[in-house]
Amino acid sequence: MIRLTLEQARELAQDILRRNGFSEPHVQAVSATVLAGERDGCASHGLYRLLGCVRSLKAGKVVADAVPEVFDQAPAIVRVDARGGFSQLAFQAGLPALLAKTRDCGIAALAINHCVHFSALWVEIEALTAAGLVALACTPSHAWVAPAGGSQPVFGTNPIAFGWPRVGHDPFIFDFATSVIARGDIELHRRAGKPIPEGWGVDEQGRPSTDAAAVLRGAMQTFGGHKGSALAAMVELIAGPLIGDLTSAESKAFDAGGDSSPYHGELIIALDPRRFLGDAAAQHLARAEALFESIQGQGARLPSQRRYEARARSAEQGVQIPRALYDDLQALLVAG
Amino acid sequence: MIRLTLEQARELAQDILRRNGFSEPHVQAVSATVLAGERDGCASHGLYRLLGCVRSLKAGKVVADAVPEVFDQAPAIVRVDARGGFSQLAFQAGLPALLAKTRDCGIAALAINHCVHFSALWVEIEALTAAGLVALACTPSHAWVAPAGGSQPVFGTNPIAFGWPRVGHDPFIFDFATSVIARGDIELHRRAGKPIPEGWGVDEQGRPSTDAAAVLRGAMQTFGGHKGSALAAMVELIAGPLIGDLTSAESKAFDAGGDSSPYHGELIIALDPRRFLGDAAAQHLARAEALFESIQGQGARLPSQRRYEARARSAEQGVQIPRALYDDLQALLVAG
Repeated sequence: MIRLTLEQARELAQDILRRNGFSEPHVQAVSATVLAGERDGCASHGLYRLLGCVRSLKAGKVVADAVPEVFDQAPAIVRVDARGGFSQLAFQAGLPALLAKTRDCGIAALAINHCVHFSALWVEIEALTAAGLVALACTPSHAWVAPAGGSQPVFGTNPIAFGWPRVGHDPFIFDFATSVIARGDIELHRRAGKPIPEGWGVDEQGRPSTDAAAVLRGAMQTFGGHKGSALAAMVELIAGPLIGDLTSAESKAFDAGGDSSPYHGELIIALDPRRFLGDAAAQHLARAEALFESIQGQGARLPSQRRYEARARSAEQGVQIPRALYDDLQALLVAG
Repeated sequence: MIRLTLEQARELAQDILRRNGFSEPHVQAVSATVLAGERDGCASHGLYRLLGCVRSLKAGKVVADAVPEVFDQAPAIVRVDARGGFSQLAFQAGLPALLAKTRDCGIAALAINHCVHFSALWVEIEALTAAGLVALACTPSHAWVAPAGGSQPVFGTNPIAFGWPRVGHDPFIFDFATSVIARGDIELHRRAGKPIPEGWGVDEQGRPSTDAAAVLRGAMQTFGGHKGSALAAMVELIAGPLIGDLTSAESKAFDAGGDSSPYHGELIIALDPRRFLGDAAAQHLARAEALFESIQGQGARLPSQRRYEARARSAEQGVQIPRALYDDLQALLVAG
């Protein structure tokens, strides 16, 4: 393992993106996301993702200097056309309007279109909880996941993320794939030559398999049986056709057999407790704390807890990445 | 089993509610919901629920003639105070404003407060998909469900329902408890003297159990491990403190050891495809059909399919209920 300070990790990410031709706004936005993933102990959304960023660029699947365009779609809808760039800059471009509309209307939506997407959603959710808002986000990916009762890939890993602002505490945030596991985790197993647990997926013939590479070619399964499958379908619909963007199957077809990050849309919904509750907002948000206490008080974890613990550790000790990944990343500096 | 035509079932439901003292608007609204449940093959939300309605009334836990009050909370939020009545009439009272606000703003929310709740959410979701809207609804219940990693009840069964309008087809709708199973299903096992499958819950000492009565006294489990548990927490938050209403633990405390339906709130979010998509709405909604075809084309079911099949069957053959339930319902007519 190679240990890097957070500053070294940031510089490495920025150097790779810059030397490979991304415009400075994308360098800043994308490096902040992958650094946050690495820092918070989420290796599958950490520096490792830079390999995919450069691969997408070299395959002509992402626009390195795209300038997002913001549309005032409706009183409670802001739409951002990412114009083929990575999603992070589009999110930043739409954020001020989303905050303003949510405070005006009580609830509002940000629809990001035509973006290349690989980001962990909790990074964006944190920007909304930091503004005192409740937030929900989801996005399709590539069609890699079979519906419950089937064996052919239709859904993406289709993450759903949710955040709740807390006074004096880190926000309550969850962010999970509606597949049994994140695809990045299966890819890390393949890179490490390790078998995956049963129940994660099927091979190209629809047979259950523990071979990471075979499942990557076949189909992953949804979490929670038909309920997880229903949620995966919901994500396809509301972050696909509802916002005029691609489903995971369409995104996969657009990639045409490549290995690039998905190209599609993302939907973020924000709700303002002050508009729901008026002067009583503080009183009711305090009642939510009793819920968190009753979970933690019986020894169960809050979903974001592990991430905040990793964040505190990384602030002191920096991050560690496998030497093989470090070497692959260094190669991107030379090639760039 | 006793067979009833839909008209007989409706009359039975209305007679029971009327003779036990519910006002005519509540008789109509509540009977429509339980009839829809019975008709669609969802026995746990069918005529059986009338027992709970009358029990809640006799325990003084529901207001038989409550008149809901509608508040224009924010440009995209309508709030309805159910004033202690059943939720169905409050939903009906808030529906026109929710439709108008969603069409104006693109996305809007209906918060129902102070309602006694036992309804299947898909009945309400269908009212929104019928208006061409996408909809999401959720509600806490009583604290019956332990968080992942714990064994003490904190969450309700906390259903999440979602609907997507389809042209020329029944809408795509799912409605599931974030517990492994609906509590009504465990109650039906107890009534039938049948054991429940492993994994549904734990007894009062936190030990896994297949004894329905023991699990009803102990705690149910969430579906899908920590992911289902995270969703259950989200429902507590957005349909509890966010709308100034009770969590499942608070609702259970309010019931004070009784056996009444939960008393709390419900959150419904509606989204208008025409505001997201403008003139391109029809084109993009048609793309959603390709998703449904790719699910059904590989032999997997859409989540609402079984319900629509039961609906078609019931329209021809009526419904069948166990004689024990029929006798219990008849007793409510005499007692009323």
